[in-house]
Amino acid sequence: MYSLAIKKAKRIITSHRTVSVAESCTGGQVAAWLTLLPGSSKVFDSGYVVYTVDAKKRMLGVDTNEPTSADTALSLARALPKKDIMVAVVGNLGPSSEAGSGRGIVTACFIADESKHTMRKSFRHGRLRNRTLSAYWVLDTISRSFL
Amino acid sequence: MYSLAIKKAKRIITSHRTVSVAESCTGGQVAAWLTLLPGSSKVFDSGYVVYTVDAKKRMLGVDTNEPTSADTALSLARALPKKDIMVAVVGNLGPSSEAGSGRGIVTACFIADESKHTMRKSFRHGRLRNRTLSAYWVLDTISRSFL
Repeated sequence: MYSLAIKKAKRIITSHRTVSVAESCTGGQVAAWLTLLPGSSKVFDSGYVVYTVDAKKRMLGVDTNEPTSADTALSLARALPKKDIMVAVVGNLGPSSEAGSGRGIVTACFIADESKHTMRKSFRHGRLRNRTLSAYWVLDTISRSFL
Repeated sequence: MYSLAIKKAKRIITSHRTVSVAESCTGGQVAAWLTLLPGSSKVFDSGYVVYTVDAKKRMLGVDTNEPTSADTALSLARALPKKDIMVAVVGNLGPSSEAGSGRGIVTACFIADESKHTMRKSFRHGRLRNRTLSAYWVLDTISRSFL
């Protein structure tokens, strides 16, 4: 998965499309992969790891009591610095289910070319594997759909 | 290294000491490891991936023309939301050397219990390995020195 993620990051960097990210459940993994390769600063300058409700409000001004909802993902993506592609990812990777958030369900909102795209995916593994897969899914979606 | 990082993250989570991070060269990897385990939101709520000079200024108000300096690391750590431990990490992981930043030299500033500690470490591998080692070094230092 690591080498696949590097391939996706390379494709994004060579596209020269700039990206900003707000990460809740992925906790910084999308940013970490996007900045692995030399030259990544040409497309990526900042990532917001908004792990808690408080962080979403303080860092991006998104006040929500539904932190894993599609509305929250959209609000976070809209609050990001303007780049070619703005991405926000929220969800619950497990192991427990919480109110309003099914275990393993991840929602990402992509804003590109003035269009917004909200996607939801369900991951059925343990928390660590769900984390890796959800961060990879974000990179893969950028690479396939928005370059 | 992944399983070692998880052990360190577990130790930090079980200490109940809260942490905030500003990451330049590690690009979100410290935050990603700190949020891997269940219960991580008890100690971690936000991470600032301030990858470029512009991001350092915009996200944390740190205006610098020496982005890899110890002064910059200290300013970033001071600008973070107040937690038990505030950490900033800057440096150049390679492959190229840049003005004022030797290749593989990483500087981290830790503020804990109202004391500040600046540490520098030199990594001699390729960029990807340097990245992993530098993020692990940050977790290891928190775990050994500030819990």
